[in-house]
Amino acid sequence: MLRLICTNLCSKNVYLKVLRYDIRNFSSSEHPSKIGALNHVAVAVNNLQKAVDYYREALGATVSEPQKLPEHGVTVVFVRLGNTNIELLEPLGSSSPISKFLETNKSGGLHHICLEVENINSAMQRAKSYGIRCLTEEPRIGAHGKPVVFLHPKDCNGVLTELEQK
Amino acid sequence: MLRLICTNLCSKNVYLKVLRYDIRNFSSSEHPSKIGALNHVAVAVNNLQKAVDYYREALGATVSEPQKLPEHGVTVVFVRLGNTNIELLEPLGSSSPISKFLETNKSGGLHHICLEVENINSAMQRAKSYGIRCLTEEPRIGAHGKPVVFLHPKDCNGVLTELEQK
Repeated sequence: MLRLICTNLCSKNVYLKVLRYDIRNFSSSEHPSKIGALNHVAVAVNNLQKAVDYYREALGATVSEPQKLPEHGVTVVFVRLGNTNIELLEPLGSSSPISKFLETNKSGGLHHICLEVENINSAMQRAKSYGIRCLTEEPRIGAHGKPVVFLHPKDCNGVLTELEQK
Repeated sequence: MLRLICTNLCSKNVYLKVLRYDIRNFSSSEHPSKIGALNHVAVAVNNLQKAVDYYREALGATVSEPQKLPEHGVTVVFVRLGNTNIELLEPLGSSSPISKFLETNKSGGLHHICLEVENINSAMQRAKSYGIRCLTEEPRIGAHGKPVVFLHPKDCNGVLTELEQK
């Protein structure tokens, strides 16, 4: 955005005026399409209690109580790491979206990462303009009650990537 | 540790003395075997430039310059997420440890997570006491110049897990 403005304007005064506007409204840390923090790394597990025991006992982590989310087909536990969370996902119900993953990955495994954005629509638009496919046409309300969208793993170096509005 | 001491001591003075010692040396946030922050999530990629373009252009992330690490068989780039990093790994040399992963995962994918610990030896001892296998007998110096050890993914819910001393 900023580069385009600078290239196309020749008047110094106009350039400075637009530059100030640009910095105020779209500073790099607040651009609505720019990714922010890693909200969580999701791990699919066959046995939630076994996974909880591993993180709590063998690694000494703080672990939340299990929470059933029938509308998302998972039971979830958060492993609190201070700067972010590991989200443990166990299938709940016969149509759980992670059952297929566990058929291929018998021991469980890294399922997806979730990155925060200021504005989900701007972030989708930016990703799409670079040829990244979104798995839904519109954002949906995710497991944390916030608008989310998943990006196609084949367009993201094999990584299923969730964008979540802060 | 703390609970055991409190149960076994009946003298108030001795209890307080030991309690102070315990808090100073083994507070829950500083216990040498307890995991801390997520240092990074590693993503194996076939084409580092393509992966850098995706994170920088399509997602608007800040991305480091590539760094060749011949002793670890990788070229590495860090995607800075504010609270943690994504570490992009491209094979370097014929014996790169991530080449086999990329043979199975043609598009690339989530390779491992790295968790920080205060003391690598204490963390290894704790993990081993719960039956978690370490991939080396002793810690080694990792890509960031710090002592690290990898835990067997089959003991960690299918997740290759690196522990790194802070």
